[in-house]
Amino acid sequence: MIKDIHRAIDELYSEMVDIRRYLHQYPELSFHEIETATFISDFYEKLGIPYQEKFGGNGVIATLKGGKPGKTIALRADFDALPIQEENDVPYKSKIDGVMHACGHDGHTAVLLTLAKAIQPFQSELPGTIKFLHQYAEEQVPGGAKPMIEAGALNEVDAIFGTHLWATTPLGVLQTSKNAFMAGADDFEIIIQGQGGHGAQPHHTKDAIVIGSQVVSELQKIVSRRIDPLATAVITIGVFEAGDAFNIIADKARLTGTVRYLRKDVQKQVKKEMETIIKGVCIGNDATYTLNYNDGYPPLINHEKEADLVLQSANKIPEIHKAEEIIPEMAGEDFAYYMMERPGAYFFTGAQIENHEFPHHHPKFDIDERALPIAAKTLIQAYFDYQEEHK
Amino acid sequence: MIKDIHRAIDELYSEMVDIRRYLHQYPELSFHEIETATFISDFYEKLGIPYQEKFGGNGVIATLKGGKPGKTIALRADFDALPIQEENDVPYKSKIDGVMHACGHDGHTAVLLTLAKAIQPFQSELPGTIKFLHQYAEEQVPGGAKPMIEAGALNEVDAIFGTHLWATTPLGVLQTSKNAFMAGADDFEIIIQGQGGHGAQPHHTKDAIVIGSQVVSELQKIVSRRIDPLATAVITIGVFEAGDAFNIIADKARLTGTVRYLRKDVQKQVKKEMETIIKGVCIGNDATYTLNYNDGYPPLINHEKEADLVLQSANKIPEIHKAEEIIPEMAGEDFAYYMMERPGAYFFTGAQIENHEFPHHHPKFDIDERALPIAAKTLIQAYFDYQEEHK
Amino acid sequence: MIKDIHRAIDELYSEMVDIRRYLHQYPELSFHEIETATFISDFYEKLGIPYQEKFGGNGVIATLKGGKPGKTIALRADFDALPIQEENDVPYKSKIDGVMHACGHDGHTAVLLTLAKAIQPFQSELPGTIKFLHQYAEEQVPGGAKPMIEAGALNEVDAIFGTHLWATTPLGVLQTSKNAFMAGADDFEIIIQGQGGHGAQPHHTKDAIVIGSQVVSELQKIVSRRIDPLATAVITIGVFEAGDAFNIIADKARLTGTVRYLRKDVQKQVKKEMETIIKGVCIGNDATYTLNYNDGYPPLINHEKEADLVLQSANKIPEIHKAEEIIPEMAGEDFAYYMMERPGAYFFTGAQIENHEFPHHHPKFDIDERALPIAAKTLIQAYFDYQEEHK
Amino acid sequence: MIKDIHRAIDELYSEMVDIRRYLHQYPELSFHEIETATFISDFYEKLGIPYQEKFGGNGVIATLKGGKPGKTIALRADFDALPIQEENDVPYKSKIDGVMHACGHDGHTAVLLTLAKAIQPFQSELPGTIKFLHQYAEEQVPGGAKPMIEAGALNEVDAIFGTHLWATTPLGVLQTSKNAFMAGADDFEIIIQGQGGHGAQPHHTKDAIVIGSQVVSELQKIVSRRIDPLATAVITIGVFEAGDAFNIIADKARLTGTVRYLRKDVQKQVKKEMETIIKGVCIGNDATYTLNYNDGYPPLINHEKEADLVLQSANKIPEIHKAEEIIPEMAGEDFAYYMMERPGAYFFTGAQIENHEFPHHHPKFDIDERALPIAAKTLIQAYFDYQEEHK
Repeated sequence: MIKDIHRAIDELYSEMVDIRRYLHQYPELSFHEIETATFISDFYEKLGIPYQEKFGGNGVIATLKGGKPGKTIALRADFDALPIQEENDVPYKSKIDGVMHACGHDGHTAVLLTLAKAIQPFQSELPGTIKFLHQYAEEQVPGGAKPMIEAGALNEVDAIFGTHLWATTPLGVLQTSKNAFMAGADDFEIIIQGQGGHGAQPHHTKDAIVIGSQVVSELQKIVSRRIDPLATAVITIGVFEAGDAFNIIADKARLTGTVRYLRKDVQKQVKKEMETIIKGVCIGNDATYTLNYNDGYPPLINHEKEADLVLQSANKIPEIHKAEEIIPEMAGEDFAYYMMERPGAYFFTGAQIENHEFPHHHPKFDIDERALPIAAKTLIQAYFDYQEEHK
Repeated sequence: MIKDIHRAIDELYSEMVDIRRYLHQYPELSFHEIETATFISDFYEKLGIPYQEKFGGNGVIATLKGGKPGKTIALRADFDALPIQEENDVPYKSKIDGVMHACGHDGHTAVLLTLAKAIQPFQSELPGTIKFLHQYAEEQVPGGAKPMIEAGALNEVDAIFGTHLWATTPLGVLQTSKNAFMAGADDFEIIIQGQGGHGAQPHHTKDAIVIGSQVVSELQKIVSRRIDPLATAVITIGVFEAGDAFNIIADKARLTGTVRYLRKDVQKQVKKEMETIIKGVCIGNDATYTLNYNDGYPPLINHEKEADLVLQSANKIPEIHKAEEIIPEMAGEDFAYYMMERPGAYFFTGAQIENHEFPHHHPKFDIDERALPIAAKTLIQAYFDYQEEHK
Repeated sequence: MIKDIHRAIDELYSEMVDIRRYLHQYPELSFHEIETATFISDFYEKLGIPYQEKFGGNGVIATLKGGKPGKTIALRADFDALPIQEENDVPYKSKIDGVMHACGHDGHTAVLLTLAKAIQPFQSELPGTIKFLHQYAEEQVPGGAKPMIEAGALNEVDAIFGTHLWATTPLGVLQTSKNAFMAGADDFEIIIQGQGGHGAQPHHTKDAIVIGSQVVSELQKIVSRRIDPLATAVITIGVFEAGDAFNIIADKARLTGTVRYLRKDVQKQVKKEMETIIKGVCIGNDATYTLNYNDGYPPLINHEKEADLVLQSANKIPEIHKAEEIIPEMAGEDFAYYMMERPGAYFFTGAQIENHEFPHHHPKFDIDERALPIAAKTLIQAYFDYQEEHK
Repeated sequence: MIKDIHRAIDELYSEMVDIRRYLHQYPELSFHEIETATFISDFYEKLGIPYQEKFGGNGVIATLKGGKPGKTIALRADFDALPIQEENDVPYKSKIDGVMHACGHDGHTAVLLTLAKAIQPFQSELPGTIKFLHQYAEEQVPGGAKPMIEAGALNEVDAIFGTHLWATTPLGVLQTSKNAFMAGADDFEIIIQGQGGHGAQPHHTKDAIVIGSQVVSELQKIVSRRIDPLATAVITIGVFEAGDAFNIIADKARLTGTVRYLRKDVQKQVKKEMETIIKGVCIGNDATYTLNYNDGYPPLINHEKEADLVLQSANKIPEIHKAEEIIPEMAGEDFAYYMMERPGAYFFTGAQIENHEFPHHHPKFDIDERALPIAAKTLIQAYFDYQEEHK
């Protein structure tokens, strides 16, 4: 049967591309994906596959119950876009000013919809149940995964799989990890409030640039001395802004930055140590501060067994010539929340365009559309392999 | 005779104020003082006192040769204005948008012109020669003093005196120093060129914010460890700018600042140590830098004897109730160049307005005009006392 | 047969303990293990098992060729002691002043000798060949593993296994890792040469304490900014010595420390970055330095398949109730060199004494001797399982 | 009369040298100057000049009341020695092991005693009263000046003068300052208490070397940013001790150092800022500290008029070819306490030996004895000049 499904997917290739390109032209920002959600619902409506819309927000979940007993497995695709002005010169270029599918979620949606259409004819022979989980708002914290879970998206679900079309991984390569796969990614803003004054009279001031520089230096010691050397943490200050004139001592310094980690306890510790260090520096300088620390998504920790299964499933897809384990990608992804609730795995489907390699979130980001059916085949293969293993 | 001159000054008070207010309404920026220079020349023209215009640039020097033998003494007043939008609500408010006499040079000019007019009737009895030295461009490095000296302003001059109306010193107070009186004041810009990159991948970057912070910290050690503790040096970084986004490691940091000092050798050492430190930090981080260091005016070192003379002269002026030595003011002043060539002294004439005290270069800066005749009387008193001492 | 061998090991338990206790009383320092090597040779001599003594130094290798075809596998035990004064009050306390088997190598040797004796009767049925590799000088860089390998210890060897009796792991627990298991561990000494002088005249000195402190702070940035966040590196400065008197500026600072890492490229990078940073700091302070960096053992990287095999073998030993993967131990071990040449795995055999838990290298270190037969059984089990897998 | 006194001093030159050399051979440590005090008392006893012994401790004050009216002036000489082993090879080398007059107090005493003897014959013509103030314990805080003042040493005294034979100033040169002449000099000890541990596990420790290094760096900012740039402050850390082994993280760091300053408010501010900074650093590192700060002598501030008088008096001494104002010497001296109570001045009498120039407190320190009568003549000249001025 799996061979037939593969063939069905291949036959739907041009529709898959059409869907992706249509969505690409009409991108919608996170939490504002009204038309896209309607597009998805309509698709299932036409197929006659039962679905729930406005699921935990703008989510849509369609359910295909197979004729054979088996597990219930969710396959997830996200569908929001980014506030980026597209710079590609393609026929399917975004028609919405300043909004762009610069992360491939248009492709994810096309994959899942087409897969549903391809597999529907095999429903009676299908073991278990597929939940087509279309998630809104992945790009923006707090994201759509959490409210959808809270609304019951994982009820009765035994496992969940998902993929990201990856523009910097070659076509035909699949990548995943059996443990931490994507990082926790938070951001913060530190405001140091000293006291300004005449550049020649430092003794009447609390020099915010000197204090801010000390903060930058001391924060380095969190990673070098306070975090388990076997754990991973990155603390980056991306912006340092202070002072208006070369001869006036600045009263205020503003630092913004990001924190990345692969374990929740590391995040907790980084937050605590940042506060401790900034507080100490400010006390030592009789200055004050505010630290605004915003939690992003938690680290995405794949389940070992399911990640292993994905690697084996991938090896059965003719178009995939390499399925490999990789070290964690330090970006964030709210698929993390599903992994905290159910077994499953997330993986990258190589979609790099030769001679047009731009990273995700770049105005010239694009994907090789031949990756779409590969993603669909891998997802359904993993579905079948999981059923087989849990008979 | 001195009493008569004092009376003559008092009688010209309203003209003195008129001149000051007229100039205040038509301020001109440094190196662009065309109308002001013409105003000054015209004044001497009308008086019939010989003068030289376009002296070493926009300068004007008038010469009153007394009928008695004696020394030649220059009295200096500067006449340029600042790029500041006046915020005072006064009838004589600046009529030139964005330009303001916010440092009192209008007053200095009024003092010197009126003094010339007041003393002219006494010319036959006057010992020695007065040079009324109207200097352009004090506010902006490289200033007008240097080119005027090069053009011969001090030829045949035995000594020189000058005063600054000082808005933060009470009326009736005169201040000077027998040694360093005003600081050398330089400025600099440091550009740190590291290598930017993804906020989660510090190992592929050279973090300009971390490097810049280290530069700020290390520069502190010049004053704490490398400069003679008995000397004076200030190194202030007034601006630290780096980075565009919280999650991107900055490739470049820009620091600007100012250096103050009271001895030329200290300036030289600070420059050398700054270069050494920044170089070391950049080598340690495999980064590069540019240091643009701009010499300002040298420290203004009064001559002990002449400063002492000014203090004694001041004590003879009824309106002055206190003549005091003060610690150096850490601002710069190109009167410094005259002091490097001839004996003399510079002093502050208190001109603070009660309940309206704003520092120099402030949009609400103003002076108590009653200080104008006090300045004139002190200058001419010093002139006579110097002649007396050098008979 | 394996069951019979297990029984044979159990029957030799008291001899095993005797050997261990005898060696414990007569410890010898690294590179000076003359008597211990003779003890080992004599043992094989008596058994009639052929051996080579003075192998690549003080090493001894005995060879038991089985009657059945199979692979040649080395089992390694180290036998040197430490310069520590024993503080245990036991009948078998060290009789050598200041020398102690404080790391369990006495036990390792007892395990391997007894195992040889236990298995000899089964020689004709034994598949493959066992090499009993008794290594000298593990405790002191450059160690005995390297010269023994260079002398041919691994010639014709297909795989190698070894174990460490581990005093902080409970009895009945086996621990290993399928990848990096023990760290690379180097040491270094930094001498900063500044210029001393009077405590009140910093400007005539180059303050070695200020420079040394800067070195300490800057070295933190290697781990925080320059090493891949997904890699592991520790840079510790354990000693900072500078200055003789509170009122004299120190001319010299001495810093010593250690570096730990799990990848050779990380070691290389740490060395390079240390040099770069210290050089930069010294240039910035017009000071000089020497950096003596001593390579220790490389990281011990287990081979995945063989580590997996050990875990499975361990599960067959009745006395082992848990066989687990652990994160790397950050200490060094020259078993690392064998792993760079041949497949194999190193593992910890839990030997913790309840209510007497002291770490390795502690004057009160001791092991639960019931761990000895467990270690022997696991080694021989792994031997048989390996033969089975490579038939 | 002054000429006659000069001649009397010259005639007593060999006795002066004898006294100095005798005292040099029998030095006594601060607070233990029993024999020296008796030597002094005996001297006055023999002369028949009334004196008080055990004055405020080991002090001796002799009083010579002149026959003419006038002011009462104290002339001060200190008489304690140092815990230094003399390394000079001279006939008058110290006979006391480990104790040495390495600061010239033997000479000071010889000067004052001889001066008393020289002037006594002129008593009836002498205007005013001389107090010969022999002070004990200058070398060790809290010193002898304070208790002697408290015991009434300055009662009825109008002014006080004192000199230091100065081994790095050429013979024939006199040096003083009209303001701050010698520094306040304090010392301190900082103990940082972190938490030690394994060199590979920084996250379980609070690294005292990293914390101590931060303290060193941050303390630099007191001088660079918090003290008035026109004031003087030196903060030197002379000793940094931490750690026992290269591979163990230190739990404790000990820093000792000295603070120098010329104004009491600066001392106060330095103490406060040190505490603030160390506290802040420790809070930022979750560590604790103790700061033991020991006040030394306050800054010695000469009185302008009396210092000026000394310079003029010096110009009348034929053997003095230069009397100059110098910048402050950054060492401490408890003559400071007298200056806080009465007008007066302290000065240096050049006593450098050509080709044997060793600083004070050096084992090879020595003075050119020809400086002794110069010191005596200057003191008595200042005495007479002061009387003249205050008739």
